[in-house]
Amino acid sequence: MFTDDYFMRMALQEADKALEKDEVPIGCIIVSNDRVIARSHNLMETLTDVTAHAEMQAITSAANFLGGKYLQNCTLYVTLEPCVMCSGALSWSQISKVVIGARDEQRGFINKGLSLHPKTEVVTGVLEKECSEIVKDFFKNKR
Amino acid sequence: MFTDDYFMRMALQEADKALEKDEVPIGCIIVSNDRVIARSHNLMETLTDVTAHAEMQAITSAANFLGGKYLQNCTLYVTLEPCVMCSGALSWSQISKVVIGARDEQRGFINKGLSLHPKTEVVTGVLEKECSEIVKDFFKNKR
Repeated sequence: MFTDDYFMRMALQEADKALEKDEVPIGCIIVSNDRVIARSHNLMETLTDVTAHAEMQAITSAANFLGGKYLQNCTLYVTLEPCVMCSGALSWSQISKVVIGARDEQRGFINKGLSLHPKTEVVTGVLEKECSEIVKDFFKNKR
Repeated sequence: MFTDDYFMRMALQEADKALEKDEVPIGCIIVSNDRVIARSHNLMETLTDVTAHAEMQAITSAANFLGGKYLQNCTLYVTLEPCVMCSGALSWSQISKVVIGARDEQRGFINKGLSLHPKTEVVTGVLEKECSEIVKDFFKNKR
């Protein structure tokens, strides 16, 4: 039951919440021992804050829940590949695993030649089609 | 009067505040039209949050002050070269100018091959000695 697909669907639900607010629809959850300890979605426009990406909020929220700043035994599920800022934050957090839906060839950290913490396992392509389409549709409707 | 040295001294005062809290002493201010609109220092330990770097807080704070997420006509003064996370946040903010005290060869964005927004002017080496020594002394005393 607790598969990567299962948790990525929850991240997609978060992306839907962003979409309802006319935000770029990116969602994210953090799971520890099969329990969701943080959920968030992009709030850049709502908060008028370029740092309010889904991942940044989730990292802060999970650390608050755990009472420690390192996200050991935690997995972050995010619908779109993290940007440079979010990859930097994930590196500092030493999170155990990051599961990515769709790749972001332009803004994502992978094509910038960056990597996360050596301890961090990275998985890409989980529910890739759904995660990609929600963002593409958003920008298509904007034009 | 309103020179880069003048404003970097204010960033150093913020670093001193971090030092008093036993935080890695890094301080930062954001200036718009010679007026300080944000000041902050590293609070990673105090807030138990890897995202609580001085620059991240200052970006959020300045955007809040300005009522807009882009930091046009703003200059950020920071005592230590921004990390990957903070450089990513600065890129999203499209800030006009970033003035750096000491370089961070290991963790700084420059040696990672990253650059800020094409609009952003970057100046390094302002009060380099003071900015470098406060961090070096901190880690020396930790050992």
